[in-house]
Amino acid sequence: MYQLYAFATPNSIKAIIALEELAQDYQLHAINVRQGQQKTEAFTLLNPNAKVPVLISPADKLVLTESAAILVYLAERYGQLLPTTGVARARVFEQLFFHASGLGPAFGQSGYFQKAAPEAIPAAIARFDGEARHTLALLDRVLATQDYVAGDSYSIADIAHFGWLWRRAFANIDFSATPHVERWYALVAARPAVQRAIARADAMLADAAKA
Amino acid sequence: MYQLYAFATPNSIKAIIALEELAQDYQLHAINVRQGQQKTEAFTLLNPNAKVPVLISPADKLVLTESAAILVYLAERYGQLLPTTGVARARVFEQLFFHASGLGPAFGQSGYFQKAAPEAIPAAIARFDGEARHTLALLDRVLATQDYVAGDSYSIADIAHFGWLWRRAFANIDFSATPHVERWYALVAARPAVQRAIARADAMLADAAKA
Repeated sequence: MYQLYAFATPNSIKAIIALEELAQDYQLHAINVRQGQQKTEAFTLLNPNAKVPVLISPADKLVLTESAAILVYLAERYGQLLPTTGVARARVFEQLFFHASGLGPAFGQSGYFQKAAPEAIPAAIARFDGEARHTLALLDRVLATQDYVAGDSYSIADIAHFGWLWRRAFANIDFSATPHVERWYALVAARPAVQRAIARADAMLADAAKA
Repeated sequence: MYQLYAFATPNSIKAIIALEELAQDYQLHAINVRQGQQKTEAFTLLNPNAKVPVLISPADKLVLTESAAILVYLAERYGQLLPTTGVARARVFEQLFFHASGLGPAFGQSGYFQKAAPEAIPAAIARFDGEARHTLALLDRVLATQDYVAGDSYSIADIAHFGWLWRRAFANIDFSATPHVERWYALVAARPAVQRAIARADAMLADAAKA
């Protein structure tokens, strides 16, 4: 059975959604990043970069980090959520890397400078809030002419973008300026596997609050 | 023939190296980002995100952005530089996404705040310089026990990391604290295809200086 180390974070939810979509059994281990559990010696043996999620795949004796690499690994293992050839496949990787290098870091840094930094730095907030809104506008343009982020079919690229957009409040972002993203988000959020994944993430938060 | 829109930048060199490694014919179009040519209407028709590189693959009628997506597309098309299954393949994607979401953005933001920002912001410089050095130290740890970033074989993950490390001076980084990265960098830089790619990038800079 897969072992997934995760929390209710933008990157963790991607791996949980993928396992739910693929109907795989997995054991979920909550790593409470609000308490710094990702920095413990036990966890950094799994990921020296001290980040969730981490997937253990016993069949391959594999400990795998980087949420998007986990998505690719699972999609290829089961032959789902990722076209096998041609332009359709290239578009999925284009969006995965646009998320990993563009939208994701912009949302993360914008949220950090708005909510977590020890001092308010207006120039840094303006830079990363601008990048977050710019990358979301680019995604809106893509979604104006197609149902899903990489074309006509739901794929791991949708799962990747969903992670940060589920946690958009951290970056003070809403969908008022991006109606196509809003339409797409509702479509993805309504999927039973996505709802099950969100319920599991919320349950980790609730358990952490009780502890 | 492939058409590649690029300049002498960390992300552009990745696509040039891949085409040289795969011995493919391509026409190189210089987009002088120092003069803002990536923001022209002609270029943003190719990439609305106004970033180089962009690859056009006539065989697939494909206009592809995101340097790492270009690497995956080319590697899969020719069945080289990317293992086809298992742990070896997962490690390549893990490093590609670690580069795209971690090392690359850290180097880019560190360089921006040190060299391009209109005002000096010590807290932002400290944050991103720290991230750049931290991600490089993680890569050094990986390279302490294996020849290449994703294992025993050269892959597109090495090409991805090479791009930003070739331009490490922008982020004020050297290899004095990361001897394994230094050893690996010399190994990759000595490859004939990499030397040809650097020569083509340097030639774009020289032509731009004359223009």
